[in-house]
Amino acid sequence: MVVLFTFKIKEEHERQLREEFPDIAFRFAGKLDVDVLTEAEIIVTYGEDLSENEIEQAKNLKWVMVASAGLEKMPLRKLEERKILVTNVRGIHKTPMAESVLAHILSLKRSLPKIYEFQREGEWSKKLGSSELKGSTAIILGPGAIGSEIGRLLQAFGVFTIGCNRSGRLSEHMNEMISFEKLITRLPDADIIISVLPSTPETKGLLTAVHFDDMKDDAIFMNFGRGDLVDEQVLIDALDQQKIGHAVLDVFEKEPLTSDHPFYRMANVTVSPHVSSHSSEYIPRSLQVFTYNLRKWLNGEEDVQNKIDLKRGY
Amino acid sequence: MVVLFTFKIKEEHERQLREEFPDIAFRFAGKLDVDVLTEAEIIVTYGEDLSENEIEQAKNLKWVMVASAGLEKMPLRKLEERKILVTNVRGIHKTPMAESVLAHILSLKRSLPKIYEFQREGEWSKKLGSSELKGSTAIILGPGAIGSEIGRLLQAFGVFTIGCNRSGRLSEHMNEMISFEKLITRLPDADIIISVLPSTPETKGLLTAVHFDDMKDDAIFMNFGRGDLVDEQVLIDALDQQKIGHAVLDVFEKEPLTSDHPFYRMANVTVSPHVSSHSSEYIPRSLQVFTYNLRKWLNGEEDVQNKIDLKRGY
Repeated sequence: MVVLFTFKIKEEHERQLREEFPDIAFRFAGKLDVDVLTEAEIIVTYGEDLSENEIEQAKNLKWVMVASAGLEKMPLRKLEERKILVTNVRGIHKTPMAESVLAHILSLKRSLPKIYEFQREGEWSKKLGSSELKGSTAIILGPGAIGSEIGRLLQAFGVFTIGCNRSGRLSEHMNEMISFEKLITRLPDADIIISVLPSTPETKGLLTAVHFDDMKDDAIFMNFGRGDLVDEQVLIDALDQQKIGHAVLDVFEKEPLTSDHPFYRMANVTVSPHVSSHSSEYIPRSLQVFTYNLRKWLNGEEDVQNKIDLKRGY
Repeated sequence: MVVLFTFKIKEEHERQLREEFPDIAFRFAGKLDVDVLTEAEIIVTYGEDLSENEIEQAKNLKWVMVASAGLEKMPLRKLEERKILVTNVRGIHKTPMAESVLAHILSLKRSLPKIYEFQREGEWSKKLGSSELKGSTAIILGPGAIGSEIGRLLQAFGVFTIGCNRSGRLSEHMNEMISFEKLITRLPDADIIISVLPSTPETKGLLTAVHFDDMKDDAIFMNFGRGDLVDEQVLIDALDQQKIGHAVLDVFEKEPLTSDHPFYRMANVTVSPHVSSHSSEYIPRSLQVFTYNLRKWLNGEEDVQNKIDLKRGY
């Protein structure tokens, strides 16, 4: 059985896979190698290199393992037609993303940007104006796996968490739940507003100038979901007019930002270049999901992890 | 009854005190006013402005409330002689200090210094080498109120916590406890070593070159206790030779650091100018302890909070 990896992994990980599965012919091509494609039974990919054309060529293909959460660029219909199993690694982003969110919040509350600045200037100064996270109120837009993990950590710091989703149905690690419609009523109470929402017709442009008007003037707004949640000019205006205290942005309308983008130079903005899910643990954790499923696959078991319903697309 | 405040507080806090205790003559002098001193029954101070001389002048003095944890500069013997009640605010540092410790750890794990640097340079780069806190092992030197709070938060992030004190007796929120003598045996397993130890004959110079030899080469060492825990040159050598990954220092042998101190320019050092306990919540929280005790005092109740045993000095 041939397994094609279309992205590079470390030699030590290659060795581990070969040792655990000696009967499998692993092809660590690091790209979509056409010669291997035709014989591969399993393809392990980031999910951005497969088109309908490639699926047709892959005559032996039975399983596509996507080492990512997004499936936007996958030829799902073609895969469904061929009844090919598709799995992904959803859930593995929650730890690095939640840690990034907490890192940015604590950094601002405990004045780390100023501490670093004073160090660069060789200045011993205690004029920092530090505050605390404890006793804050946070609204989490999109309390799924990632949002709940953020809520869990915030609660450990003594933060009151308000989850906000379409239905307002209860989610884990939230002290309170509200629907999108009720969001505006709770914004005046929030010290921190965090979005981890995906891009859907309902979330696109969900936040408008009115929302920023209703936030506290020292509120921290964090977008770690998708850049189309709020029109960029609306956000720039809110920050220029100091309607809120600070924005931490991991996602943008257009990525990468051009080097002359105003966000880079705004003192009340942190630009995080879409890296909040990055982690040295990413590949090891993806391979754990893969090997777990591979063992099941070899045993003919069908209850693999993170199986995608190709009709629904998730 | 006259109460003298020797440090400044906000007008709103003055008003709150006057409203809650209308029969008390508050003197918000903001310094050790000699005229008020002679009539004051209670003095509220940071504990650095009282000498034996002042205690003698304060004929009516019955209670000194110290809005700090350290009592090193207080004339304890004289106070004991006069049988004056002394209370402090120990415990109120734990939230800001634990939040500072977590802020620095997460900032390093999630590459915030690099993210800020790329932003200053207007550069969109994902080359950060971020890792995760989850799954790490931390040694906490001095697992008292502050150390245990750090342990509690670290455990929420999935960190294995090892407390280290003189006796090795169990402390809260520690997965394991070791004595100072056993420290060296567990250093090779630690990703993070945090000290919140006070300065005592036993802790002075507790860490030596041998200890840094035994740490992981990517370990984070954090000193948030006292600067005499380790000889500064030993620490500089360990960092120059990259025996460890990074040091976050909130305390130093001599404070303030002079602007030409090497720590300021070392890429693997964060200089925090002894501010980890600073917080906008400090005065409000101190006043909470004070008013709680003041109510008891006025009712003639003796079980006040944070009463100091003047013989032991804590």
